[in-house]
Amino acid sequence: MADTPLEPALSGEDDLIARYFRPLAHDPGAFALIDDAAILRHEGEDIVVTTDAVVEGVHYLESDPPASIACKALRVNISDLAAKGARPAGFVLTLALTSASDAWLRPFADALGADADRFCCPLLGGDTVATPGPQMVSITAFGRVPENTMLRRSTARLGDCVLVSGTIGDATLGLALLKSGAKAADVAEAEAAFLIDRYRLPQPRMALASALRRYASAAMDVSDGLAGDAARLCRASGVAASIDACRVPLSAAAAARVASGNVALATLLSGGDDYEILCTVGEAGRDALIAAAQDAGIALTEIGRVIDARAGGACRFDDGTGREMVFTRAAFSHF
Amino acid sequence: MADTPLEPALSGEDDLIARYFRPLAHDPGAFALIDDAAILRHEGEDIVVTTDAVVEGVHYLESDPPASIACKALRVNISDLAAKGARPAGFVLTLALTSASDAWLRPFADALGADADRFCCPLLGGDTVATPGPQMVSITAFGRVPENTMLRRSTARLGDCVLVSGTIGDATLGLALLKSGAKAADVAEAEAAFLIDRYRLPQPRMALASALRRYASAAMDVSDGLAGDAARLCRASGVAASIDACRVPLSAAAAARVASGNVALATLLSGGDDYEILCTVGEAGRDALIAAAQDAGIALTEIGRVIDARAGGACRFDDGTGREMVFTRAAFSHF
Repeated sequence: MADTPLEPALSGEDDLIARYFRPLAHDPGAFALIDDAAILRHEGEDIVVTTDAVVEGVHYLESDPPASIACKALRVNISDLAAKGARPAGFVLTLALTSASDAWLRPFADALGADADRFCCPLLGGDTVATPGPQMVSITAFGRVPENTMLRRSTARLGDCVLVSGTIGDATLGLALLKSGAKAADVAEAEAAFLIDRYRLPQPRMALASALRRYASAAMDVSDGLAGDAARLCRASGVAASIDACRVPLSAAAAARVASGNVALATLLSGGDDYEILCTVGEAGRDALIAAAQDAGIALTEIGRVIDARAGGACRFDDGTGREMVFTRAAFSHF
Repeated sequence: MADTPLEPALSGEDDLIARYFRPLAHDPGAFALIDDAAILRHEGEDIVVTTDAVVEGVHYLESDPPASIACKALRVNISDLAAKGARPAGFVLTLALTSASDAWLRPFADALGADADRFCCPLLGGDTVATPGPQMVSITAFGRVPENTMLRRSTARLGDCVLVSGTIGDATLGLALLKSGAKAADVAEAEAAFLIDRYRLPQPRMALASALRRYASAAMDVSDGLAGDAARLCRASGVAASIDACRVPLSAAAAARVASGNVALATLLSGGDDYEILCTVGEAGRDALIAAAQDAGIALTEIGRVIDARAGGACRFDDGTGREMVFTRAAFSHF
């Protein structure tokens, strides 16, 4: 057991928790992190549970600022709650650290606390463990929905419109920039900053949650690539979808790079880390859902239709010339 | 992003989940693991949340069988629920794997499923990620207690008896055996098997949960060493404790090794991985609690008293000659 202190300045795990994380745990159910467990009070609603981990070198880069790692770890979970139509209720954190340095933990904890406040999702508990390996942040987040109203991915219906929020592919471009170390010579500075920000700082579409619950027939967040995630939604619902690839919303930066041949549209449609909402909605609710999204300041774009699964449950992306796009990989998979 | 398949036999994360973990997810709130989130239905009770991770090389050895790793990962969480007086309601699993081999995943998933059934704690969801580093299993478990009845560690009262379940120190000896590779020459085979089993397979004291809720004033599980955990309980409650080290229950195997001078009692009292229950109870409830434990087949031994914290909130272990024991480390700490 690795019981050698990694940082003499910190006398132990209890001090680490007290110093960095207790200030975040102001929910009464967290018991100021001095207990072994937290309490989620029943409030006559269903509790939505989601869990997502980010691993250094896989979901974020070692060079990413600790603050953005904290935000990403929490936001990928908040994004799931938003897609399920839930409002956040709190989270627990498992932190596997290679060392316990103030230089890393201070900005990490501060950013985590600020995001927890921003999304009204208080820290309820956690576990801090030492690892010789890459660092890892695993979060289990909780949300609340009125009984039996959690949005599912398995309930899309024939004829529904398929919509997606925000823009797709920016994070893929941001990651590529970070990996290539591309400089201002290649990409305008503001554009590079925008794309990198889209990779590092997901924007959970929480403002959409209640409208989704009211109008959408099915929803999920797009985290592993639109093409693959849309196929997952179709499979879960026992339907297929016909998507018009040219209607998939792109940012100006992404559109310019596709137009110049710098990147293939297929790469953007199958890249990960978008953290946008993919949903289906019946014809009758479509305009109301789009209007509600607009009121919330979020673009929601119709990109296709749910069709019969006799094609084999596939999700077909039309390239605009009537041909089906071919993806070398439809979605990010760890294995 | 590491999108190279690590094991060609498995076509991806979705298949891995379907093959190994969907069969465990029979709770309706798990949606057969095809959704992004699970549901915990409100049943008019508080939901207890606890999270604990086990890391290869830190909490378990690379050589440990996958089945025992699965059981340990779940049981350290069930142990927390038992200490809080909660009955299990389910869990979510984050699995950070270096590879996705059937030889590891099959016994892991089978053992996890068997334990989930044994403890009535169904798998509700999870996340499977690739890591280049050591493997890690992080579990967040949920329990239910009647409103406002979760046992705390901060509610011990002056004059309460201090009790501990089972026996202390066996896991420390089991780990030492595994690390030294000691053979039958040194230790009788059955004794070695018993001690190693105590390290690998915690026995959550779930049968104590309802009696604890009824009678105990405070409780926690002993996972980082009795001495340190007792001090934590005292600190949280703003009290001190006087513990008679000679009354701390030891197994025959552990007692023999202390008697022969093979291991210091202090080492056993400050070792980790006991997963026993430490609790306090008022004089009036003591006999009833011990009797209820006996009915449940679990030994509960009185080892000391809660005293005034004017001594500085310390937890004093008396060595039997009236002298205070000195621990080189009171509890396992990761940092």
